[in-house]
Amino acid sequence: MSHLSVHVPLDGGRAYDILIGRGLVDAVGAQAAALGAKAAGIVTDETVAGLYGARVRASLERAGLRCGIIAVPPGEASKSYAGYASVCDGLLALKIERGDLVVALGGGVVGDLAGFAAATLRRGVRFLQVPTTLLAQVDSSVGGKTGINSPHGKNLIGAFHQPRLVLADTATLDTLVEREMRAGYAEVAKYGLINDPGFFDWCEAHWRGIFSGGPERDEAVAICCRAKAGVVVRDEREDGERALLNLGHTFGHALERLTQYDSARLVHGEGVAIGLALAFRFSARLGLCSGQEAGRVANHLAMAGLPTRLQDVPGGSGDAEAMLDAMAQDKKVRDGALTFILARGIGQSFIAPGIGRDDVRAFLQDELRG
Amino acid sequence: MSHLSVHVPLDGGRAYDILIGRGLVDAVGAQAAALGAKAAGIVTDETVAGLYGARVRASLERAGLRCGIIAVPPGEASKSYAGYASVCDGLLALKIERGDLVVALGGGVVGDLAGFAAATLRRGVRFLQVPTTLLAQVDSSVGGKTGINSPHGKNLIGAFHQPRLVLADTATLDTLVEREMRAGYAEVAKYGLINDPGFFDWCEAHWRGIFSGGPERDEAVAICCRAKAGVVVRDEREDGERALLNLGHTFGHALERLTQYDSARLVHGEGVAIGLALAFRFSARLGLCSGQEAGRVANHLAMAGLPTRLQDVPGGSGDAEAMLDAMAQDKKVRDGALTFILARGIGQSFIAPGIGRDDVRAFLQDELRG
Ligand SMILES: NC(=O)c1ccc[n+]([C@@H]2O[C@H](COP(=O)([O-])OP(=O)(O)OC[C@H]3O[C@@H](n4cnc5c(N)ncnc54)[C@H](O)[C@@H]3O)[C@@H](O)[C@H]2O)c1
Ligand SMILES: NC(=O)c1ccc[n+]([C@@H]2O[C@H](COP(=O)([O-])OP(=O)(O)OC[C@H]3O[C@@H](n4cnc5c(N)ncnc54)[C@H](O)[C@@H]3O)[C@@H](O)[C@H]2O)c1
Repeated sequence: MSHLSVHVPLDGGRAYDILIGRGLVDAVGAQAAALGAKAAGIVTDETVAGLYGARVRASLERAGLRCGIIAVPPGEASKSYAGYASVCDGLLALKIERGDLVVALGGGVVGDLAGFAAATLRRGVRFLQVPTTLLAQVDSSVGGKTGINSPHGKNLIGAFHQPRLVLADTATLDTLVEREMRAGYAEVAKYGLINDPGFFDWCEAHWRGIFSGGPERDEAVAICCRAKAGVVVRDEREDGERALLNLGHTFGHALERLTQYDSARLVHGEGVAIGLALAFRFSARLGLCSGQEAGRVANHLAMAGLPTRLQDVPGGSGDAEAMLDAMAQDKKVRDGALTFILARGIGQSFIAPGIGRDDVRAFLQDELRG
Repeated sequence: MSHLSVHVPLDGGRAYDILIGRGLVDAVGAQAAALGAKAAGIVTDETVAGLYGARVRASLERAGLRCGIIAVPPGEASKSYAGYASVCDGLLALKIERGDLVVALGGGVVGDLAGFAAATLRRGVRFLQVPTTLLAQVDSSVGGKTGINSPHGKNLIGAFHQPRLVLADTATLDTLVEREMRAGYAEVAKYGLINDPGFFDWCEAHWRGIFSGGPERDEAVAICCRAKAGVVVRDEREDGERALLNLGHTFGHALERLTQYDSARLVHGEGVAIGLALAFRFSARLGLCSGQEAGRVANHLAMAGLPTRLQDVPGGSGDAEAMLDAMAQDKKVRDGALTFILARGIGQSFIAPGIGRDDVRAFLQDELRG
């Protein structure tokens, strides 16, 4: 089995590898055994359990590990206090001890939830990410951010807890519905937009191969993981540069909030796609980058089937004031001022703290007028 | 205001001080302001809120901090998933941000719960311990262990999160009911029993001063904090020596579990007192220490009004098998073998892994026979 690999050189014995390739779900057992675990709790959602649960369990059992599956309902609603309690209690019922492993098998929801449970079960057990959505493979499974949502907002409760290994089986994406594939693709394009204009060019030329499962898919996942790993190693706790990864997310999170995290209306990556287009148009409006570049960003996202305007949100996004309030509740707010990630061009993003509410309001009002 | 102080020299910018003295609740605001916080969420229980909440709030407001109080019902039952969710959501409603502070005002229940909320709110905000029980002042407020209980057992969910400062106001103990004072005293005596025979002698001579609030109280709290801080600095994550602090706790936790954490029957420190007496009698039975020393331990605890025998548990402790099962669920179990802290004499404790169930069963059966 051939695969690509990305090393994440964190200090304090926390360095780990990301393996990328087709068929890696069958290697979970051998990798877990190599880490010296005797038991593993597989945390997943019901959809992914039905597709890959048996293979991962068989792989672990072949390697001699005791294991069990804890499956939560699919969807963002499982990243809740109640979902957290049920995963922790499920792991305790499986008698997962400090030397054992939690295996997060699924998308970002499962990774965040299982990772937070692993971070806090017995004050910390090791965990392994087996991401099965494009979004999870290029973003959420790397970097150690774990957590759940509060009624007050997304990801407001959590911990930094690095996985011991990430196994990104790109063949699992073959069963992903098109819409989730597109949503993940927004995050792929994001890496080009942040600081790698060459990769954005490459995306414009090769995005179809990522969707169809050609070698471009593995290559793109590896490039994104390498980019994210680099940022994480330089700024693990998001005191600085790591915030760039939030390009498109301040708007995106607000939209998710305003649509009540109802995935029938909007999924995370769709919010990010709109957010990326908005961030570039807002940058253009502020005279930071050209309107042409902002147009190129929106065009490419739209070409890949992603929404790029507030009007694309089914049921509407609410008015500008509602968007502002939703953004102000985001945790990237300090002392009440809004922080955005803006751009001087494709691949030239930067952190822009202290953006005034009035500028944002006027921009959003114009956007809503169309 | 004169006070004693103990420094906890942890690395990575996490060193902190423990201040000990009468009247320190009125200094919370000045200390919080010195840490640069603009807002503070006071987490407490309803009893402590009634006694000291207004003073702490006034102190914070005098220092210019925005603040609010979140009070949970008193008692171990608040250290639950539900209690955790309500504290986190309460802190979010107060708009506590990353640079702000959580103030844990109360006993060990509040300290563990508020500390865990602080560890995980926005993936970590700073917190200040203001312990108001003897147990919390000498034990739970120092060392960074935070957490909640699961239906599967005590403290199974949590995080290591060090406070930025501990303010142990020994005058608050004046309002503590006698029974809680005694329970905390079990932990005081424990430090002598672990590795400081001279302190145990001193306790035998001076314990009344600790109870009555003489200068011995502050002195004892400082000695205990210094002892605990030393252990924590040498072994923060409990890979070795820190386990010695569990002297008396393997039995004690089992008793708490068997009495359903019903504080009407048994509070933590009472479980520890019985556990200390049992640990020494078990050590004597295994030929590790003299029966005379085991007797001296039990006598001193009984003198201070503490229970020392399984029969002292109101409603009974269950049979030996039930005790064993309860101990096997404790998180200090690895691969199924029981680990105890035993002693070769007063002040000569050590970690004894791999103790056989049969030895423990026979011992407990004899104890129950009386
Ligand atoms: N921790 C981080 O750094 C980070 C970064 C970005 C996003 N996130 C979080 O990730 C979450 C979104 O992740 P997501 O988009 O993967 O959502 P998701 O986990 O809900 O998965 C999307 C859907 O795809 C299904 N699915 C997963 N794998 C499949 C497969 N191989 N075949 C068929 N169906 C499959 C799931 O059952 C689910 O219905 C959000 O909660 C977001 O906050 C976290
Ligand atoms: N984190 C650690 O390292 C650690 C160590 C030991 C124990 N613990 C935990 O500590 C908890 C027990 O702590 P505790 O014994 O302080 O219990 P507690 O917090 O329940 O307090 C005991 C009772 O005293 C009341 N009270 C508190 N301060 C008072 C005051 N000044 N005057 C009057 N009443 C007051 C409380 O309302 C409560 O009813 C347990 O949950 C245990 O697991 C944690």
